[in-house]
Amino acid sequence: MTGEAATPNQATMQIELINTGSELMLGRVLNTHQQWLCRKLADRGHVVSRQIAVPDSGPEIQEAVRDSLSRSDLVITTGGLGPTSDDLTRTLIAQLLGKSLREDPAVLQHIQAYFESRRRPMPESTRVQAQVPQGAVVLPNPNGTAPGLAMEIRPNPFRPGGGASWVVMLPGPPRELRPMFEASVAPLLERVFPAPKRFVCRTLRSSGIGESVLEERLAAGLQPLLAQGLEVGYCARPGQVDVRFVARGDAAEELVRQACVLVRQRLGEHLYAEEDEEMEFALVRELTRRKETLALAESCTGGLLAHRVTNVPGASAVLMAGFVTYSNAAKQTLLGVRSDTLAHHGAVSEEVAREMAEGARERAGTTYALAITGIAGPTGGSAEKPVGTVHLALSTPRGTSAVLRLNPFDRETFKMVTTQQAMEMLWRELSRHGS
Amino acid sequence: MTGEAATPNQATMQIELINTGSELMLGRVLNTHQQWLCRKLADRGHVVSRQIAVPDSGPEIQEAVRDSLSRSDLVITTGGLGPTSDDLTRTLIAQLLGKSLREDPAVLQHIQAYFESRRRPMPESTRVQAQVPQGAVVLPNPNGTAPGLAMEIRPNPFRPGGGASWVVMLPGPPRELRPMFEASVAPLLERVFPAPKRFVCRTLRSSGIGESVLEERLAAGLQPLLAQGLEVGYCARPGQVDVRFVARGDAAEELVRQACVLVRQRLGEHLYAEEDEEMEFALVRELTRRKETLALAESCTGGLLAHRVTNVPGASAVLMAGFVTYSNAAKQTLLGVRSDTLAHHGAVSEEVAREMAEGARERAGTTYALAITGIAGPTGGSAEKPVGTVHLALSTPRGTSAVLRLNPFDRETFKMVTTQQAMEMLWRELSRHGS
Repeated sequence: MTGEAATPNQATMQIELINTGSELMLGRVLNTHQQWLCRKLADRGHVVSRQIAVPDSGPEIQEAVRDSLSRSDLVITTGGLGPTSDDLTRTLIAQLLGKSLREDPAVLQHIQAYFESRRRPMPESTRVQAQVPQGAVVLPNPNGTAPGLAMEIRPNPFRPGGGASWVVMLPGPPRELRPMFEASVAPLLERVFPAPKRFVCRTLRSSGIGESVLEERLAAGLQPLLAQGLEVGYCARPGQVDVRFVARGDAAEELVRQACVLVRQRLGEHLYAEEDEEMEFALVRELTRRKETLALAESCTGGLLAHRVTNVPGASAVLMAGFVTYSNAAKQTLLGVRSDTLAHHGAVSEEVAREMAEGARERAGTTYALAITGIAGPTGGSAEKPVGTVHLALSTPRGTSAVLRLNPFDRETFKMVTTQQAMEMLWRELSRHGS
Repeated sequence: MTGEAATPNQATMQIELINTGSELMLGRVLNTHQQWLCRKLADRGHVVSRQIAVPDSGPEIQEAVRDSLSRSDLVITTGGLGPTSDDLTRTLIAQLLGKSLREDPAVLQHIQAYFESRRRPMPESTRVQAQVPQGAVVLPNPNGTAPGLAMEIRPNPFRPGGGASWVVMLPGPPRELRPMFEASVAPLLERVFPAPKRFVCRTLRSSGIGESVLEERLAAGLQPLLAQGLEVGYCARPGQVDVRFVARGDAAEELVRQACVLVRQRLGEHLYAEEDEEMEFALVRELTRRKETLALAESCTGGLLAHRVTNVPGASAVLMAGFVTYSNAAKQTLLGVRSDTLAHHGAVSEEVAREMAEGARERAGTTYALAITGIAGPTGGSAEKPVGTVHLALSTPRGTSAVLRLNPFDRETFKMVTTQQAMEMLWRELSRHGS
């Protein structure tokens, strides 16, 4: 992102996010809190300036919180509020700030009620979760036992110049943290840090064009907007490149609107989404609008395409059926692929992809069907058909088309890239045949 | 993780990871580098002590690198090596360290060859990727244009006491970063930081038991092992709790082995994996061993279960077919669910789940079939069947069983928890009927 620190529109509030958990440092779990919380905060005009992950032992958490408090108006921590011996965040932060802990009767009652409602005895160790640092606000946790905690630090002893800062501690499990953020943290922020500058962030998504070519097409046209404070970022992802515009202040909407007009003119059909949405959302939206339907037949992507499409609320109006047909037998029985075709061309072939798509479309009675057959690896490749070979087919009322792709990546990337390419086929078809 | 900083077995090498990218701070993409790199490093005995994400503007990257160098032997950065105007990492770090940049002819040649092999013109902007800081080692990038860079900083001007530190810069796209780590970074680490203490990390996975009850069962037995330097951590995840053991030094293997014996004794059938594997890996492994097969019929989870199972290499020997049947029509046509059953009980009912499982098992000709029908939300609930209601059924050669669950979570968590519960049903069946 160019020139962020130099523009007059920059946000002045400093926010840092600290994720605690040795499992993060050992690479045992994926940190999904960063994206979720950063997104939710940005949507409210609060951009996180730094995110930190540390193990959940003592010195590291205290050192990280002290560092962050020396720079920030708001520090949000995640994790370490649970009942086990490695849950130390509450105690360590209270200690760092010189606050004593007391048992909160209302929180204890909530924990007791939580176990009673599940007809399970309350383990004594869970009682620690009722400990509240002196002066802290309790953030209720309807989905678990550990409440969140919010504390105003006034004066902030770690920040040059003092002033006041806030520390907000949230529990680690996403299904506890997320509702707590919406119900308790968002209102708190509105009260404590009101009226951030107008903030607009829009991501436009393109496919089938390289990152540097894309920037070359946009650079000259964007120049006058950048001079007015627009920020631009590029992000290359499997099978696509995102262009992101950020603007702050009263002119934010207008700057981003003008930038989007330019992208539309310069990228044409490479542009598939003008909002910050994955292609599956664009497809379901467009198919719903047209009252058209879809069936899927997947071999090597094993259901990922169906999973992605059904991540979109309302997908049930569009996706009639998905077939995961790994075996030749399943391809024959479920999709009507002919044994002749399998014998002559092999399961990974354009011919089989076409018959899968046509079979899926016919059996599910849909407008369109996408089919995927290929070699995800790590084994199963040959000189003629190496690992990563994949045939995609799209069956439509206007006929069936097929393409060959080579995606020689690890299994996870292979599945992601391949499903993206399949959706792209359908997107181009929809773009060419408006309705 | 208890007592990490106090045990004599702690690793002494300090490693920090810096992920750059404004898209991270805006919550626009998920940071998968952290888990992947932390995992790969831990597997080699190098545990990351802190991970930091910052926007890709100037001051933040330089400040973060300076902070990390003040504490660390090794600093790894990701992102910001590409061709666009927001790719500043290379330049900013060279500037921070007072190194000039020069164009490397071999790198330039690689970039030119990369575009030639794709029969595309080389955009002038990509030439910046051939810039190499004075004294840096080039890490080749066979999957993209931007090479990685490794620099020894001797003496390290930011660290109290000086000494030498390393900075390694890796490109942002995972399919470039990952092979580069394996091919170039791992050998470099072996050469520069040889013989880390023996390091063992094992995660055991349990289901159907709460986090605090689990710790109560293990606490007394683990005490003597903790005294010898074993570290333990607990992590509650959707539908399961992980127990993680870490040990360092010569006794590491033995300490972790003894801890695993204890867990086996105290958790019994709640334990489903003794390696650091998801349940789908345990299931595919066990079904493969038994030469048994599986079919899946999914409504509300929309293919996620098939996706998870097919993430396991070799799943093709086990998973014969998956059906994604959102609509009533698809449930009837593809699985043979009777219209009577749908009319009397509704699509979300035990009866329909049973018929889906039996239909899938019969049509795919498998040993087992799992079926899922429920209400993922956000809409579609009623007083009688609220959002989150889900019926699971398992059909086996010994008959069909069904359970009702209530998973009133966001769509993503709902799908994850529900597929976990379905796999748990099958796991218990396999545990009860050994073969």
